[in-house]
Amino acid sequence: MIQMTLIQIDNYGPWTVTPTPRRESDLQILQAELYADLQRQFAAKQGLVFFMRFDNMLAISNGMDMEDHLRIQESIGNRYPITVSMGVGTAQTPYDAQRKATRALQSHGGAQSEDRKEVLAIDALADDEGFVQIAHIDINGITETLTDTMPAYDTSFVVNRVQHFLMKKLIKKGSLLFFIGGDNFMSPCNGLAPEGLLKIINEIKDEINIALKAGIGKAPTAEKAANLADLALEEIRGGFTYDLVHLMKE
Amino acid sequence: MIQMTLIQIDNYGPWTVTPTPRRESDLQILQAELYADLQRQFAAKQGLVFFMRFDNMLAISNGMDMEDHLRIQESIGNRYPITVSMGVGTAQTPYDAQRKATRALQSHGGAQSEDRKEVLAIDALADDEGFVQIAHIDINGITETLTDTMPAYDTSFVVNRVQHFLMKKLIKKGSLLFFIGGDNFMSPCNGLAPEGLLKIINEIKDEINIALKAGIGKAPTAEKAANLADLALEEIRGGFTYDLVHLMKE
Amino acid sequence: MIQMTLIQIDNYGPWTVTPTPRRESDLQILQAELYADLQRQFAAKQGLVFFMRFDNMLAISNGMDMEDHLRIQESIGNRYPITVSMGVGTAQTPYDAQRKATRALQSHGGAQSEDRKEVLAIDALADDEGFVQIAHIDINGITETLTDTMPAYDTSFVVNRVQHFLMKKLIKKGSLLFFIGGDNFMSPCNGLAPEGLLKIINEIKDEINIALKAGIGKAPTAEKAANLADLALEEIRGGFTYDLVHLMKE
Amino acid sequence: MIQMTLIQIDNYGPWTVTPTPRRESDLQILQAELYADLQRQFAAKQGLVFFMRFDNMLAISNGMDMEDHLRIQESIGNRYPITVSMGVGTAQTPYDAQRKATRALQSHGGAQSEDRKEVLAIDALADDEGFVQIAHIDINGITETLTDTMPAYDTSFVVNRVQHFLMKKLIKKGSLLFFIGGDNFMSPCNGLAPEGLLKIINEIKDEINIALKAGIGKAPTAEKAANLADLALEEIRGGFTYDLVHLMKE
Ligand SMILES: Nc1nc2c(ncn2[C@@H]2O[C@H](COP(=O)(O)OP(=O)(O)OP(=O)(O)O)[C@@H](O)[C@H]2O)c(=O)[nH]1
Ligand SMILES: Nc1nc2c(ncn2[C@@H]2O[C@H](COP(=O)(O)OP(=O)(O)OP(=O)(O)O)[C@@H](O)[C@H]2O)c(=O)[nH]1
Ligand SMILES: Nc1nc2c(ncn2[C@@H]2O[C@H](COP(=O)(O)OP(=O)(O)OP(=O)(O)O)[C@@H](O)[C@H]2O)c(=O)[nH]1
Ligand SMILES: Nc1nc2c(ncn2[C@@H]2O[C@H](COP(=O)(O)OP(=O)(O)OP(=O)(O)O)[C@@H](O)[C@H]2O)c(=O)[nH]1
Ligand SMILES: [Ca+2]
Ligand SMILES: [Ca+2]
Ligand SMILES: [Ca+2]
Ligand SMILES: [Ca+2]
Repeated sequence: MIQMTLIQIDNYGPWTVTPTPRRESDLQILQAELYADLQRQFAAKQGLVFFMRFDNMLAISNGMDMEDHLRIQESIGNRYPITVSMGVGTAQTPYDAQRKATRALQSHGGAQSEDRKEVLAIDALADDEGFVQIAHIDINGITETLTDTMPAYDTSFVVNRVQHFLMKKLIKKGSLLFFIGGDNFMSPCNGLAPEGLLKIINEIKDEINIALKAGIGKAPTAEKAANLADLALEEIRGGFTYDLVHLMKE
Repeated sequence: MIQMTLIQIDNYGPWTVTPTPRRESDLQILQAELYADLQRQFAAKQGLVFFMRFDNMLAISNGMDMEDHLRIQESIGNRYPITVSMGVGTAQTPYDAQRKATRALQSHGGAQSEDRKEVLAIDALADDEGFVQIAHIDINGITETLTDTMPAYDTSFVVNRVQHFLMKKLIKKGSLLFFIGGDNFMSPCNGLAPEGLLKIINEIKDEINIALKAGIGKAPTAEKAANLADLALEEIRGGFTYDLVHLMKE
Repeated sequence: MIQMTLIQIDNYGPWTVTPTPRRESDLQILQAELYADLQRQFAAKQGLVFFMRFDNMLAISNGMDMEDHLRIQESIGNRYPITVSMGVGTAQTPYDAQRKATRALQSHGGAQSEDRKEVLAIDALADDEGFVQIAHIDINGITETLTDTMPAYDTSFVVNRVQHFLMKKLIKKGSLLFFIGGDNFMSPCNGLAPEGLLKIINEIKDEINIALKAGIGKAPTAEKAANLADLALEEIRGGFTYDLVHLMKE
Repeated sequence: MIQMTLIQIDNYGPWTVTPTPRRESDLQILQAELYADLQRQFAAKQGLVFFMRFDNMLAISNGMDMEDHLRIQESIGNRYPITVSMGVGTAQTPYDAQRKATRALQSHGGAQSEDRKEVLAIDALADDEGFVQIAHIDINGITETLTDTMPAYDTSFVVNRVQHFLMKKLIKKGSLLFFIGGDNFMSPCNGLAPEGLLKIINEIKDEINIALKAGIGKAPTAEKAANLADLALEEIRGGFTYDLVHLMKE
């Protein structure tokens, strides 16, 4: 079982244009710092946050309880002009976990409701049997083939295209996909077998001719799973395995 | 003429895995804080940065000269474990400006070269005739139709899909597209007529049934253009214009 | 027993002037952000950091073990151009705890040694019997008598003078004193009786005619002790006790 | 003429305890980040901020006009749970400049007034003849004699003592003194002759046996003056001058 937390800024849309539209640079700074801040606080509990849409973020939160979530909400409320609400869900797949987390939060009111503020809606927490499976997916040799030869925007266009294809294929397996910068993606993917991911990678090679590789980690917390995924990726990079998908467990 | 700056972290890929893969949460915090920091410094000169791939960011920098860029590079070098190089280009369209900015930087060495460090490569600066045109594109009623009813990941999936379609159509016009959080996109679009954008918005409505609206701003600097675009968007939102695309100039 | 951690930037002096003196604003931002960052990470473990000299900070760290300290050092090393070493000491009084923490670190090399880097030197950790006693000391009515009537610098001059007197008197009791902003001070003061602090407050009233009040908190962690001290201070402010020093325990 | 800006958090005292005392670690993070943020924004205009009491900061702002101050206030208001008011004053000495800045702000209401919010009160701006004189004062060989041999708190005690003596002596000359971390102080000191500062340094050597040195810089902006002061200090450190006080101008 994987546990996911949806973090949503309360009534953010109206705030951004009240009384007149706030300077976009300020909104960008606010969003990036809020994300960095939440990341630091979830990381202190071995969780991992994905920025997603910035006003709505998803985190893997196995090992974190109600108290941990409340502390973070309070700390944000003390230091930002906005507050955040959270929903927590647990399921066999990341897709279902975020679905339950979302529903739990939605049942307390809409994202632009004026009444909903700093809600913490927990559907279920993962127990000790819970675990996290994360794939770290990376484009082969992007520096040589794209970054150093193509216009910067074209490279980002390719990366966005890869993201789009990966999202479409992974969601069918109940797995999520998040861009984490550079040519890197992280996929919370409990329930997905390495062969399933390899098949997707092969399809993308065929369809859009981009070569990917993926390290997979499996562990009790997001931090450890991500770390194992990184190590597995380095094994592939270093040529220690011929496979394009490599799994490491605790 | 629009002036664009490519900001690239020097030799970042190798650094992230030396001596062993660095904790992903730390990389995420580093990237988000670097972006927020650059945004603040460009904003002080009325520029605007887009995070793009985080290790490669694009900024609109009309009005900023060599000295301004050098100061920012030095300040980043003083406070982060990494350094940044920059390329600056100017052209009739944003696409061409970033292409020239990229080429200027690439000519000084690759992104993972060990020798290239804190390079500032200026192809050309915009003169006083230069101006910035920005479209702020937004999805209609996302809160009701998606955020408050669908799982959070599905909403972000839709937003990503819209991004993909917009990117594909805008690049043909020499315009760029960046996601700025929520259901919002900003498009540097010098050279694109309002009718051209309206046509794209109509096509997207037909093809994937998502209704968009767009405010366009035109001004000497990115900050002013973005602000006018916001005001134009509010005109549409407030029902003061029937058009889905509305332009405001200084 | 109170546990204290000395955090020292490695070889910082030389770095600030290499190759030429770095811009002072950058150093100030670096120091303030490093402090805020450490505070957030210690707070996630119920610790509390005092900025002291910024290149040397002292933290109360009861409840934090070797692993907790190592994680923080690694995270700083991943995101800043500098690294930090730490010493940890435990004793009956805060003064002795920081003395042991300092000595533990000093035995591994000097603050400007080129060889010493990211050292963690633990003399002793507090056990479950350990506790933290903190006094939150505040000037009465500073807003009316000083802030709103005197030049800003004169007010800060008075606050600095109070700090100087408090430091001199408290150190004799084995207690420390840190300025925490505004007209507020925090004193880690295990071993100091409320009467002892009241005597000091009365002396200061006599000697420099400044009226102080103090809430004291006693708990297993710095966070809880500080919170109780705050509540005790509010009791005095609210007139619920006639004493100028008020103690609250768990 | 030197221009100084007083930055004051609006109605901060009551906010820190409403509805119950906020977590001290959160307040510390808020204060440090606010200071770093203001520093970055003033630095973009060649100004320099001193944290002073954190809820009341003083900045040297020669070269900054009304528009520059308004932008900063707006940006803070967009990203923090609190707002700031400012007063600006100009005079022959830094002491008088901050006095005028304070009075200008005080005339708009008290620091804990519920009505005063985001006020900008400008008494007078410096004209093109204005200049900034800054002394960077540093303790000789603190690493060997104190940091590496004494308990960390004792070292900070000595530094605080030096600060107290310097403040007392400098204020008589119309000069201010701010601690900037480590064993360093910065003194805005328009109107103070190098000999005057040398005399103070000699007195402190006699009275408390601490050896100081000081670089002085004189330039149109705080940034340039501070930089020249740093270079002058390096001249002394490098043995290129026998004097303990050394002045450099543009
Ligand atoms: N977030 C994150 N980004 C990374 C990580 N490793 C690399 N990157 C990013 O990915 C970019 C490309 O680096 P690499 O993947 O090493 O370069 P490459 O040319 O594709 O080389 P190979 O992947 O080895 O074929 C870098 O600039 C970083 O932005 C990581 O662990 N986390
Ligand atoms: N970056 C950025 N994000 C914004 C801005 N305005 C709104 N958002 C984001 O967009 C999300 C949706 O808000 P709205 O667009 O107001 O909501 P909506 O339901 O789509 O309503 P309409 O657009 O009025 O139909 C908010 O949660 C914000 O994240 C803005 O100016 N800049
Ligand atoms: N760090 C910190 N600063 C505080 C706290 N409470 C107040 N302050 C600061 O202290 C300043 C003065 O506030 P107060 O102490 O409430 O004001 P006062 O006029 O002295 O009133 P009384 O103390 O009630 O007599 C504020 O501007 C804040 O900077 C706190 O809990 N922590
Ligand atoms: N803010 C700031 N702090 C500095 C600067 N230079 C040094 N420091 C601090 O001062 C501390 C002591 O460094 P130094 O002054 O070089 O060391 P020292 O042993 O006193 O040596 P000398 O001054 O050369 O006799 C460092 O740890 C830094 O914290 C500076 O330019 N700005
Ligand atoms: Ca790669
Ligand atoms: Ca919308
Ligand atoms: Ca008070
Ligand atoms: Ca020194």
